[in-house]
Amino acid sequence: MNQYALLHVPDSRYCFATGPKEVVIRLRTSKMDKCEVKIIYESKYVIQTSRKEAVMLPVCEDALFRFYEIHLRLTDSRLAYVFKIIEGGKEYYYSEDGLTETYNFDEAFYNFFQLPYININDVQKTVDWMRSAVFYQIFVDRFNIGNKDKDTSYINMEWGGKPTPKSYAGGDIKGIIDKLDYIEGLGVNAIYLTPVFSSVSNHKYDIYDYMHVDPMFGNEDDLKKLVSEAHKRGIRIVLDAVFNHCSMNMAQFKDVVEKGKESEYYNWFIIDGDKPDPEKMNYECFAACNYMPKLNTAEPGVQNYLTDVAEYWIKTADIDGWRLDVSDEVSHEFWRIFRKKIKSVKPDCVIIGENWHDAYPYLQGDQYDSIMNYAFTKACLDYFARGNFSAAQMAEKCNSNLMRNKEQVNFMMLNLLDSHDTLRFFTEVNKNKKKLLAAIALMVMYPGAPCIYYGTEICMEGGYDPDSRRCFDWDDSHWDKEVMSDIKNLLRLKSLKPLQYGRVIIESVNGLLHLVRKYDNDTVSLYINMSEESTNISADYNEILAGLINKGEIASEGFAVLKGEKV
Amino acid sequence: MNQYALLHVPDSRYCFATGPKEVVIRLRTSKMDKCEVKIIYESKYVIQTSRKEAVMLPVCEDALFRFYEIHLRLTDSRLAYVFKIIEGGKEYYYSEDGLTETYNFDEAFYNFFQLPYININDVQKTVDWMRSAVFYQIFVDRFNIGNKDKDTSYINMEWGGKPTPKSYAGGDIKGIIDKLDYIEGLGVNAIYLTPVFSSVSNHKYDIYDYMHVDPMFGNEDDLKKLVSEAHKRGIRIVLDAVFNHCSMNMAQFKDVVEKGKESEYYNWFIIDGDKPDPEKMNYECFAACNYMPKLNTAEPGVQNYLTDVAEYWIKTADIDGWRLDVSDEVSHEFWRIFRKKIKSVKPDCVIIGENWHDAYPYLQGDQYDSIMNYAFTKACLDYFARGNFSAAQMAEKCNSNLMRNKEQVNFMMLNLLDSHDTLRFFTEVNKNKKKLLAAIALMVMYPGAPCIYYGTEICMEGGYDPDSRRCFDWDDSHWDKEVMSDIKNLLRLKSLKPLQYGRVIIESVNGLLHLVRKYDNDTVSLYINMSEESTNISADYNEILAGLINKGEIASEGFAVLKGEKV
Repeated sequence: MNQYALLHVPDSRYCFATGPKEVVIRLRTSKMDKCEVKIIYESKYVIQTSRKEAVMLPVCEDALFRFYEIHLRLTDSRLAYVFKIIEGGKEYYYSEDGLTETYNFDEAFYNFFQLPYININDVQKTVDWMRSAVFYQIFVDRFNIGNKDKDTSYINMEWGGKPTPKSYAGGDIKGIIDKLDYIEGLGVNAIYLTPVFSSVSNHKYDIYDYMHVDPMFGNEDDLKKLVSEAHKRGIRIVLDAVFNHCSMNMAQFKDVVEKGKESEYYNWFIIDGDKPDPEKMNYECFAACNYMPKLNTAEPGVQNYLTDVAEYWIKTADIDGWRLDVSDEVSHEFWRIFRKKIKSVKPDCVIIGENWHDAYPYLQGDQYDSIMNYAFTKACLDYFARGNFSAAQMAEKCNSNLMRNKEQVNFMMLNLLDSHDTLRFFTEVNKNKKKLLAAIALMVMYPGAPCIYYGTEICMEGGYDPDSRRCFDWDDSHWDKEVMSDIKNLLRLKSLKPLQYGRVIIESVNGLLHLVRKYDNDTVSLYINMSEESTNISADYNEILAGLINKGEIASEGFAVLKGEKV
Repeated sequence: MNQYALLHVPDSRYCFATGPKEVVIRLRTSKMDKCEVKIIYESKYVIQTSRKEAVMLPVCEDALFRFYEIHLRLTDSRLAYVFKIIEGGKEYYYSEDGLTETYNFDEAFYNFFQLPYININDVQKTVDWMRSAVFYQIFVDRFNIGNKDKDTSYINMEWGGKPTPKSYAGGDIKGIIDKLDYIEGLGVNAIYLTPVFSSVSNHKYDIYDYMHVDPMFGNEDDLKKLVSEAHKRGIRIVLDAVFNHCSMNMAQFKDVVEKGKESEYYNWFIIDGDKPDPEKMNYECFAACNYMPKLNTAEPGVQNYLTDVAEYWIKTADIDGWRLDVSDEVSHEFWRIFRKKIKSVKPDCVIIGENWHDAYPYLQGDQYDSIMNYAFTKACLDYFARGNFSAAQMAEKCNSNLMRNKEQVNFMMLNLLDSHDTLRFFTEVNKNKKKLLAAIALMVMYPGAPCIYYGTEICMEGGYDPDSRRCFDWDDSHWDKEVMSDIKNLLRLKSLKPLQYGRVIIESVNGLLHLVRKYDNDTVSLYINMSEESTNISADYNEILAGLINKGEIASEGFAVLKGEKV
């Protein structure tokens, strides 16, 4: 056995509670080893004298490792355990002390693994509506102009023109309200908006007044109306919280520029010197942008201000979530305070971080619920766009990504193919519509909430920012209605229970990427064929749901979504 | 290269800040592989175009793995990095995506490792006095009787008799004050007391009134006097916080027993039913002890009460730390609240958890500072008492334990050979005085604060509780003065800078366990010989500090502590 491959970490993604007496345990081994894995467990005060044993099953494999898992229902909230691993007829024990041929239960209290007590306030809570959520991301300035009466003097590009970093096209909140029926028709039930608060830029990621909607986009009443109209249609609204940094035009920063250390806001920022000087850039900023000074979330004044902002918009506009901009650069301490405040006001208000990397330190239940799943994005690029991955490698990468987090978190992930911060996926796959559809199908099948970047449904193209932020083309004679219909059909699948609650199996079968999700007696299965030849599948399914290809045959670069027989 | 052995986890014990622009990075490889390891790093917004490279050095090995480490001083608080591993002339890259032969820095933002921003409120703070602390643990009822005027009717055993679980010997706080000169003379500068608050038991781990010192032990004035007298001698006082559970005689619990759900304290406990019923044990307890109901630290009332208690004794008696009983069964959320309160009152008040296992989830800087290092205890038992470990295995285990935590935490560990919850170490080593001294020497050399259980210095014996809680024998004609003097000499070594600040190297050399700690130009080195034959050492040292053996020769089961030449 490859001892080097073994990994288990208590009180982590390898061992976590899902309820007051429910625990998931994972063990990692090399996938080259053929092992039988058991868990020996009991209440920690009993294990010296009495023990239970249960078989752990392999649940997935990545490029190197196999993951075994078990869900335990406990009678006592204090769990002690060691693993018994059987290979080639030989038994080993795996404890905090590593792999051994024998194990001394008399002194197990020194080195068993343990979840010492499941305290209910430490158990990760879930936002259950995320299981069935289908998101639509809108870059507000480019989606739709609704308010024809506003001061339009700031608009400096024609709708549909080529955007520059300084373009203003005129999209606004009323424009979104006007299109809610359209959005609902896509099968979407949640909208994530890029920032809407006062800011001189088109993207509004440099906010100078967090308490007001920017006049370009409307006002507080418009936002309230958007939420209430959306709620009537069963659509939730998530806003963008830009709390890492603000605009240099924010009153508090201007006060410090004026008064230096005499300002009561001096500690709101991280300044090297008596006064912030934009030319010297002697203060911490977002990236190298001197107009976006970083907020010091170690400062109680900042903590109170930002959590008050977050609370205000939940209470005032009844929004359903916050997406957190550049969230990985903000302190853990702040997100803990933030979460407590948010959840005390609206427990099912979702908190979605913008972390492009493994975000486990933020996803332990005390900070965010979820992140924008850019690891999923990257895997899709490698598989669908770049040809870097075979189906087997794609399955391995998907499994590896899923094992980064607790099960509860995976169900809340915001899965995306693209956003305002990437190239458009349709451009990445060289305008191949079958690949786009296959990727959306994968996103719908994958645990978590799929997120469609506005315009994907009409095959909008776009290179890197600002090109990925083009104006929505409302001339429906330009649309590929067939692709739009296929996308709607796919998004509708998210209403199936297996796609909300089912475990997922991801593997490659004869060069095809194969996903299966089962729940109760229902099964949904997806095959994706990225090869240049069509192929037959022999799986015994009796009903084609998506209807995108003929039953039993998968076209080249095609895919099938099928519903299994009742078993 | 054994890919399976590679491990790196950002924002963890493998990557942590030690200051606003200082980071420690660790990488784990198989120790069978001969690799050269480099880190390629830069500010995360620059790494696409510009990169630095630095060599990482191997710092230690455990049974399977080698750990490479580097301390980086950054110019920017936002670190992105990948590893370059060279083996057999071939270069590999190790990133979030695993080991690859090439690495695409153009899309590195998807899969580099990162410490996105070092927020100062997330950096683990240290309690610097722990670097030079030498602890003495006192089980109060058995140390010394000071107050001859008190009501002694509760005392039911003769001083020096064989204790039972229900024995009261009469030791008290005044008894400790009377012996402060003795304690100071040992070279001790910190005392950890088992609980002193109102409780009917001799151990007082079942407290019914957290706001009063138990009359058996004295009163608030005695405690204040103990602290002030100790402080005069440069000795700090750490008290025991029993916050996992209380006594069934606590007023709040009695109120719930009386009023059930009508009681305002119902949610202070975790009760299955309308009322707690000790006979049915229908409420959560410590272990299976119905007289110790568990406190529900998810309840704000409990959170406020317990943090108020902790704050009260810091402010009232000026204590220097809290040792947290059964701390791993208490919620993370509570310890976060607790830490904030404690540190706001007295920043260098140390917080030491009682976790017998890898406690990393509690030691990330937001909860405790340190734990009672029972993993060290277990290693000493295996090496000195049980013969389970060779010197090489002991070195591996010590290194493995050190790699569990951040460097800052290792310096604050409370290292112990025994306590009121174990057999006495002297009994475990079969009354072998050389082994006892060798183990104490190791404890003094090891990063962290050594803790001597009362009576170790007079070779007290004792089996499991209650036998490990015997009365201190103040008849000095019974003492082995030579051993006591040796122990004093060893503890005095903790004043050496290398033993406070120096990195440690632990390895086996010719069957000897060898520890070296260096700081500036000073080196302290320890050899331990657990074999049955004496042996020579060839190291070139010029001054024997402890003077326990002849220079250059180590007796069987002997050891040497040497101070190196100025280099």
